[in-house]
Amino acid sequence: MNVELVNTGSELMLGRVLNTHQQWLCRRLADLGHVVTRQVAIGDTGHEIQQAVREALSRADLVITTGGLGPTSDDITRELIAELLGKKLIENQAVLAHIENFFARRNRPRPAKTSVETFVPEGALVFLNQNGTAPGLAMKIGNGSWKLGVGAETSPPTISHLPSASPKWLVMLPGPPRELRPMFDDSIAPWLKREFVREIFVCRTLRTTGVGESSVQEKVESDLQPLVKAGLEVGYCARPGAVDVRLTASGLGAEDLVRAGEAVARKNLGATIFGFDDDEIETVVVKLLAQKKQTLALAESCTGGNMAQRLTNVPGASAVFLGGVVCYSNAAKATFLGVRSASLAAHGAVSEVVAREMAAGARQQFGADLAVAITGIAGPGGGTADKPVGTVFIALASAGGVAVRRYLNAWDRLTFKEVTATQGLEWLRQLLSA
Amino acid sequence: MNVELVNTGSELMLGRVLNTHQQWLCRRLADLGHVVTRQVAIGDTGHEIQQAVREALSRADLVITTGGLGPTSDDITRELIAELLGKKLIENQAVLAHIENFFARRNRPRPAKTSVETFVPEGALVFLNQNGTAPGLAMKIGNGSWKLGVGAETSPPTISHLPSASPKWLVMLPGPPRELRPMFDDSIAPWLKREFVREIFVCRTLRTTGVGESSVQEKVESDLQPLVKAGLEVGYCARPGAVDVRLTASGLGAEDLVRAGEAVARKNLGATIFGFDDDEIETVVVKLLAQKKQTLALAESCTGGNMAQRLTNVPGASAVFLGGVVCYSNAAKATFLGVRSASLAAHGAVSEVVAREMAAGARQQFGADLAVAITGIAGPGGGTADKPVGTVFIALASAGGVAVRRYLNAWDRLTFKEVTATQGLEWLRQLLSA
Repeated sequence: MNVELVNTGSELMLGRVLNTHQQWLCRRLADLGHVVTRQVAIGDTGHEIQQAVREALSRADLVITTGGLGPTSDDITRELIAELLGKKLIENQAVLAHIENFFARRNRPRPAKTSVETFVPEGALVFLNQNGTAPGLAMKIGNGSWKLGVGAETSPPTISHLPSASPKWLVMLPGPPRELRPMFDDSIAPWLKREFVREIFVCRTLRTTGVGESSVQEKVESDLQPLVKAGLEVGYCARPGAVDVRLTASGLGAEDLVRAGEAVARKNLGATIFGFDDDEIETVVVKLLAQKKQTLALAESCTGGNMAQRLTNVPGASAVFLGGVVCYSNAAKATFLGVRSASLAAHGAVSEVVAREMAAGARQQFGADLAVAITGIAGPGGGTADKPVGTVFIALASAGGVAVRRYLNAWDRLTFKEVTATQGLEWLRQLLSA
Repeated sequence: MNVELVNTGSELMLGRVLNTHQQWLCRRLADLGHVVTRQVAIGDTGHEIQQAVREALSRADLVITTGGLGPTSDDITRELIAELLGKKLIENQAVLAHIENFFARRNRPRPAKTSVETFVPEGALVFLNQNGTAPGLAMKIGNGSWKLGVGAETSPPTISHLPSASPKWLVMLPGPPRELRPMFDDSIAPWLKREFVREIFVCRTLRTTGVGESSVQEKVESDLQPLVKAGLEVGYCARPGAVDVRLTASGLGAEDLVRAGEAVARKNLGATIFGFDDDEIETVVVKLLAQKKQTLALAESCTGGNMAQRLTNVPGASAVFLGGVVCYSNAAKATFLGVRSASLAAHGAVSEVVAREMAAGARQQFGADLAVAITGIAGPGGGTADKPVGTVFIALASAGGVAVRRYLNAWDRLTFKEVTATQGLEWLRQLLSA
């Protein structure tokens, strides 16, 4: 099955907003066994939307659009697609009731302009929006159902002759992520599973850190070869600080193949695997801390709060994370963590000695079971011959004492912060899963 | 002029990486007066890349591809495009010397597989990669120059007859952002300005915070109307916590029109404008702190380090930012900031009194001129009838005393953290620019 995404929004084309729908929907669909073959973003204009949807329908079995379903004047996707498909817009009583109820619960009058959201193309499936007003819509095309109309514009329709044996689906989702994501998970994904019954598909992603892409590949490639010949597919995806290994298979025996592949990869990659599928390293660390009934404190210098920021993104982090000090000045290292001025003077703020004192101080001051301290040179300035930009000391304090590791993370400033914080989280993970 | 982007990478289609090129390039191009009309992402397969580039060239005057120029086996864009255009790949001595020098400076032998990067399509313009090995490439198509070849696949070429009067350009950029971005700014943008001499184009973006999109629009729309009639274009772009107003004009008088529009917007939007064009609020705050010779400390509870993380993304932040305490526990609030247990017991951690004591404590303990404290309920759990999820108290301590503001930020957890930290930064900005 071919799947294509069409993301609409003039703000996307001006580069004022980041298109997060592409990644989010591609990942969800891939995990359901449907790899998106093409994603297109276009502005909110009639011609472009109709042309992009028409082209996508000429290639794909499932086309998903995002955006343009709201009540304002630049929300025109619903109307344009109804026109393209030659369908009338009809008021839907369930949607009307849902929207009236949405405002009633908030003690606010229903704005008149939301009326357009109650009109849906004739025959469309409706998915009510649990976090907003505009519903999601799904329309079947072909197979004795609808034909594509010519639309309002001049270019000829490219799909005038859909084979009647191959119906296609066009799904329209609202633009705001907080509306789209729950709607997809709660309504669209179950519907897709029913509608696009596909042969058995199994997908498992192993997430690693601390090893480069080519090394990961070298470690598993030859041992996976017999399984690949039997039908296992293996993919690699690298980002700064992390490499994913994706194992997939289809058909009878898919589950065995993926399970065998996972066993090989687990054996060969060992402790570099920090998690599976949607796991983030901070989520894994919070879960492990809770399991092991350990509390955590941080002392961050060069990462500037990146580690705290990521840990506190995890709901429930407050049960195990006591807090951290972002000690961007020497005085802060002394005042809050008890780092000795003599250590700072003799070794400099970026040193094994200071990292050690920061970790011990954080552990003691917060009364935590574990503390991680990070001090380094994020750049662009501040490097020396001994300690070039990217030099980092990470210390981990526990009841057993303090250990220190030195790294060289020669990245740009923001990547440096992210990679360095990931190293701190990874060390914690290894300690907690030992 | 029509511009289209083609982003390649199978990891994009699996949703394992976020496509940041789309936003970055769209924004850069829009600021040069070239709004991208379509962006396409596809996997690293021969058929898909050639088809997408062929389609883009059939519509656009300038097509920019990203990715697939590296030395590994899935980097096939250069070869496929040479094939599509019917051009031979020829070794380029400047690229070879650049790559040899790249490894010589790092005291590493040049990997044999980088040889493929020295081959460029015959006649291509070459942009050396200052942060990597694969060069950027630009190829002129049409106007007595090249014709599109048929390529290796079966589908017929759609552009067999380019009008000779309209040359098109195909630009290929390397995938890694730390290579692509400097190459675009240092080489591609100046080249675009020379090659695509367009009529005068002026663009100014005013960035606001604290007011919703429709309110921003209401405040400026009618007063801008006469200028819009004279040719000014006005666009709005909203994200949680921020709304951009984009003023553009072309041709003679464009500068006057945009300047007049900016004057109207500045008058009507006043202090809600936090910056212009590429300004981020944290960058503005760091600059203002440096100008006013003020130092800053933070006490973050519910934002969990978001504010520190953003401030320390700004190079040079260490000159003004002394540090912060992420006080996720009551004990941390008491130990590090001197918040009284009586205050915590009587009012709770999320209260005006505690926010006030946190800010005063941070200012004193860090020895800072200014301190911002944030305490609130990020959710999803923890709300009460009095203090629902989203309740926030922000306190600002200065030599003049401590002030507190209360907000209700009813967003999901991550958006809550971002919006709340933005409110803290905005308050600082207002104080510093008063």
